[in-house]
Amino acid sequence: MSELADYLKSKRQVVDRVLDANLPPAETPPNVIHEAMRYAVLGGGKRIRPIVAIAAAEACGANVDELLVPIAALELIHTYSLVHDDLPALDDDDLRRGQKTTHVVFGEAMGILTGDALLTEAFAWLAKPIAAVDAAHQLRAIREVAVAVDSQGMIGGQVADIIATGTDESTPELLDFIHRNKTSKLLTASVVLGGLLANASDEKIEALRKYGSAIGLAFQIVDDLLDQEEDAATLGKTAGKDVAQGKLTYPALFGTDAARAKVESLLGEALRNAAIIAGPVNYLPGIARFICERRS
Amino acid sequence: MSELADYLKSKRQVVDRVLDANLPPAETPPNVIHEAMRYAVLGGGKRIRPIVAIAAAEACGANVDELLVPIAALELIHTYSLVHDDLPALDDDDLRRGQKTTHVVFGEAMGILTGDALLTEAFAWLAKPIAAVDAAHQLRAIREVAVAVDSQGMIGGQVADIIATGTDESTPELLDFIHRNKTSKLLTASVVLGGLLANASDEKIEALRKYGSAIGLAFQIVDDLLDQEEDAATLGKTAGKDVAQGKLTYPALFGTDAARAKVESLLGEALRNAAIIAGPVNYLPGIARFICERRS
Repeated sequence: MSELADYLKSKRQVVDRVLDANLPPAETPPNVIHEAMRYAVLGGGKRIRPIVAIAAAEACGANVDELLVPIAALELIHTYSLVHDDLPALDDDDLRRGQKTTHVVFGEAMGILTGDALLTEAFAWLAKPIAAVDAAHQLRAIREVAVAVDSQGMIGGQVADIIATGTDESTPELLDFIHRNKTSKLLTASVVLGGLLANASDEKIEALRKYGSAIGLAFQIVDDLLDQEEDAATLGKTAGKDVAQGKLTYPALFGTDAARAKVESLLGEALRNAAIIAGPVNYLPGIARFICERRS
Repeated sequence: MSELADYLKSKRQVVDRVLDANLPPAETPPNVIHEAMRYAVLGGGKRIRPIVAIAAAEACGANVDELLVPIAALELIHTYSLVHDDLPALDDDDLRRGQKTTHVVFGEAMGILTGDALLTEAFAWLAKPIAAVDAAHQLRAIREVAVAVDSQGMIGGQVADIIATGTDESTPELLDFIHRNKTSKLLTASVVLGGLLANASDEKIEALRKYGSAIGLAFQIVDDLLDQEEDAATLGKTAGKDVAQGKLTYPALFGTDAARAKVESLLGEALRNAAIIAGPVNYLPGIARFICERRS
């Protein structure tokens, strides 16, 4: 296994442990909501957002051990968005990460409340006092994350996606709006959060922001490309469904070749900015390559 | 009009102005989510949570003008909980505050996403930097609010309420769990937030916590009493519905007289703790009486 693959695997395990240890135990009353939260979060996932936050914090010289709770909160937010997007009133998905979606197992009411609970828990974790972190920096990190996923961020992207689905208004501007908001902003905020919790300089924070924005958009385009190519068995979700539903995707609008070229260009942008951080431990370039070249 | 009524009215207007000025304009893309957010929040409401936070901050000697954005965030959280509770998969209510519920007007998907957006926006407001407030105090306030409304707080109360509805397990302990979590904890956190943003001493914070807990529980019992008594026209929601659905309520379990006696006892507890604050401007006793004696 490559050094990067080792790194990703070990950090994924660290994040999984932090999530498991900090989510309320399944027997906490009322049990069902805690069972559902743990089911939704602990059922797998690449943990990309916490991992880029860890990599950013490490590249800025931080010891991440104390920072893991707010960093793991990023995964709670990502999972809440998946749980709500999968609901019958939204994408109506029955499978996610190869297992039944939360509302299929626990019912629709509990699907809604589980998403709510994960989003709320995330902010409780983000606001947990950390001795090594300046409180003003931590406040900035909370605000950064909240703004990334608000109605002008991730939720706005989801709304635009719903509006665009099945309409004829498939413009490049709309597609860009959806991708930037639905995926890129939270990934960007994750990278920036790592820098803020590491007390990085404003110059480094800005480089992290550009790096995050590039890998965030690339991540979504690669997702679209994979969805187009893969079958349900490999991907663990109902593949080709975006196309069937008339969802706006990068390859659908520009063609596969242009989508691949865009990913290449974003990778260059990410690598240039990762070089600005220049810490002794810097997995940001490797992660950018991994995101752009992944096959699942 | 009494002095207290004047106070409540003027603070309600202040909160309404802050909400209107700080929610994204309706024409912010994607418009529909911002129209829905504004519809849900600006359609009326007593603004009790922000008002008790203002009263607490004032009683602790703060100038509240700079504190109004995080304080108004409390109303966003309250509104999100109503929007989600009204959804078809939960209480399935068509009317709220005398107008159609958000999902009835904007559709179910938008109902879910509007609640999500209000909860997220609330944390962006809570984390907005304020020069007059110590960042560590503000972090504590954020955590206080998040924990009050998480799966062991407000959401947990809603889950227990769903489980209890229509079952035979109507124990006093379960009722207490539901009331404390569903209503009391956010009201308590609102009062405590006012004290934290005012840089109050730990002794005062603890008195505020006891005050908030007492009025929070009283508020829910009075709600139950009113729901039992009022008709749909006066109250603006489908009255008597809790009883029809077999919802667990204080008067249903203990009788009307015992419920009224409990409210009286909680009022005494609130007044004793309000007296500990003893600032030159202290509307906390008046608000406690108002909550316990209100008729709508």
